[in-house]
Amino acid sequence: MQTLQLDLGERSYPIHIGQGLLQQPELVTPHIRGKSAVVVSNTTVAPLYLQTTDAMLTGLKHSAAILPDGEEYKNLDTLNQIYTHLLENKADRKTTLIALGGGVVGDMTGYAAASYQRGVNFIQIPTTLLAMVDSSVGGKTGVNHPLGKNMIGAFHQPQCVLIDTDTLNTLADRELSAGIAEVVKYGLIRDPAFLTWLDENMDGLLARDPQTLTYAIYRSCEHKAEVVAADERESGQRALLNLGHTFGHAIEASMGYGQWLHGEAVATGMVMAAQMSQQMGWLGADEVAYVRHILQRARLPVDPPAQMSGEDFARYMSVDKKVLDGTLRLVLMKSLGESIVTADFDPDALKRVLQG
Amino acid sequence: MQTLQLDLGERSYPIHIGQGLLQQPELVTPHIRGKSAVVVSNTTVAPLYLQTTDAMLTGLKHSAAILPDGEEYKNLDTLNQIYTHLLENKADRKTTLIALGGGVVGDMTGYAAASYQRGVNFIQIPTTLLAMVDSSVGGKTGVNHPLGKNMIGAFHQPQCVLIDTDTLNTLADRELSAGIAEVVKYGLIRDPAFLTWLDENMDGLLARDPQTLTYAIYRSCEHKAEVVAADERESGQRALLNLGHTFGHAIEASMGYGQWLHGEAVATGMVMAAQMSQQMGWLGADEVAYVRHILQRARLPVDPPAQMSGEDFARYMSVDKKVLDGTLRLVLMKSLGESIVTADFDPDALKRVLQG
Repeated sequence: MQTLQLDLGERSYPIHIGQGLLQQPELVTPHIRGKSAVVVSNTTVAPLYLQTTDAMLTGLKHSAAILPDGEEYKNLDTLNQIYTHLLENKADRKTTLIALGGGVVGDMTGYAAASYQRGVNFIQIPTTLLAMVDSSVGGKTGVNHPLGKNMIGAFHQPQCVLIDTDTLNTLADRELSAGIAEVVKYGLIRDPAFLTWLDENMDGLLARDPQTLTYAIYRSCEHKAEVVAADERESGQRALLNLGHTFGHAIEASMGYGQWLHGEAVATGMVMAAQMSQQMGWLGADEVAYVRHILQRARLPVDPPAQMSGEDFARYMSVDKKVLDGTLRLVLMKSLGESIVTADFDPDALKRVLQG
Repeated sequence: MQTLQLDLGERSYPIHIGQGLLQQPELVTPHIRGKSAVVVSNTTVAPLYLQTTDAMLTGLKHSAAILPDGEEYKNLDTLNQIYTHLLENKADRKTTLIALGGGVVGDMTGYAAASYQRGVNFIQIPTTLLAMVDSSVGGKTGVNHPLGKNMIGAFHQPQCVLIDTDTLNTLADRELSAGIAEVVKYGLIRDPAFLTWLDENMDGLLARDPQTLTYAIYRSCEHKAEVVAADERESGQRALLNLGHTFGHAIEASMGYGQWLHGEAVATGMVMAAQMSQQMGWLGADEVAYVRHILQRARLPVDPPAQMSGEDFARYMSVDKKVLDGTLRLVLMKSLGESIVTADFDPDALKRVLQG
């Protein structure tokens, strides 16, 4: 087992990564302060891991809220199901919520914890690669609105994150690839050597080799932890983590949440960011091709949906959270492994990229 | 004009109190950092004060979201109307929300500000006495759930609070009395001299004498500011502000939100707290009678609804936020003007009070 400490002052917490961690209650129980816990999971994950999770909570009053599975349920209605479960089970301010599932479960559980009785504790147990390397670390929580993704939410840090790599054995191939998109992202943002390592070890990742997965997750969490610790509330450096996301969110919103996986949309979004970086004169054609290559090796889509026009992109990107005072900011690559946030670009160049 | 500074470190903010402040845009505009503002009001207050408020925002991009009026609309559905308005009007992270109305508008606008894009700025312009002396100060925001009041929310401090006493001229008599309940509360919690002043000046308050109102509001805000500054997140002293609220919330929930005004329920709740304090041997019968007397002078109800049984109270009180780890805590009076929070009481004594 490896442990990373996310350093956020009084909101600091450990991230444990390794095999068989769901069999180690001593990793979780010290972080539960009250006498009760509520596990939030979904109809896909609960049959696989709820029993093991419940066994960790022996001696505590606990219950489980099981949500429907899918990004299309990441909304206020489903959130309200969690509140109702908490109230029906007399959860109080010392109750700890435990998110058992992927990013959707983690984001919604975290937001329920941020807002139930104005804030209770929670623990993340991510069971998808995407959630392990991205959404479970950093404290961003929330739900979607029909007019925009993650438009409702809060910053709320968990008490600990428990990453059991064994849970990836039940993950669908497509979900695994979507997770790898975010792993590749860390390489593109700030770690050229990791990018090379990923190129060399992509087969091992796809074959779910435990050592390869563990290293990729650890390194990804380390990158995310460093960025988040430097900038908890996303005023500056943290925005780099959105590489590919402004384009990707537009794809997800336009296609309807749940049609494209988040990681798939981000993969295509990163290719578009690379193309925009080429328009800026920062990347060469061979580097754009390399970005496409490594994502294709991870079996990810690299071209936007045929039915999306440039206008579709422009419309959805205009409500993106990176728009400040009406100015669109993009995360672009100065080189492979070095990204920046900029609002200083030629709108016509962006139009060319959006029109494909 | 009088100005109180609520001292919360980097979240400190001024509370301006006086006549004609809605005609002084220079009090508000320094607190708007972006180029856009969204006023949130309701169908009762907007026809009276929206035009004046809009005039303060000249030069900024601004719009208004008008909600239905009433505690029964303080829920996730109405909150979602605010989100939809913000998204349709392309509000971004630098947009400032302005709450123009009573406590319901203030709580919902504050919570929308806490959660829209994970947090934007907001300003409180309370137009009811209750909101002026209570909900607009201290940063508690949120909405109700069918199973409990204020069960969903966040701590989110405004950038400033603007209290224009002129707006009380359009307030219904019943609403004015409900506000006086919270003013009396500060006397009962921590200020015997203020209680005496209120007894002597109750006629002036009911007649809406500007000087009398200004002093009562200023003193109430001062008390609330002192308590909140000492205990922003309600781990200890802040809980004293809930005098009468545990009983009162049960009345509101049992009767259906909106039937009893919050202040009316709190008035009756404070009488019940006094009766429980008598059971504890802390107050004499004459002091309980004095609590009834001063609230009756303010034209407030002092007896629980006839149709509520002791069991009704017990059921609704069991989900109250003051229940920690299954232990019910009550705010009780050691003497008039000195309250404490305690879980150390005889359940049978409570039962006697609840059964009336």
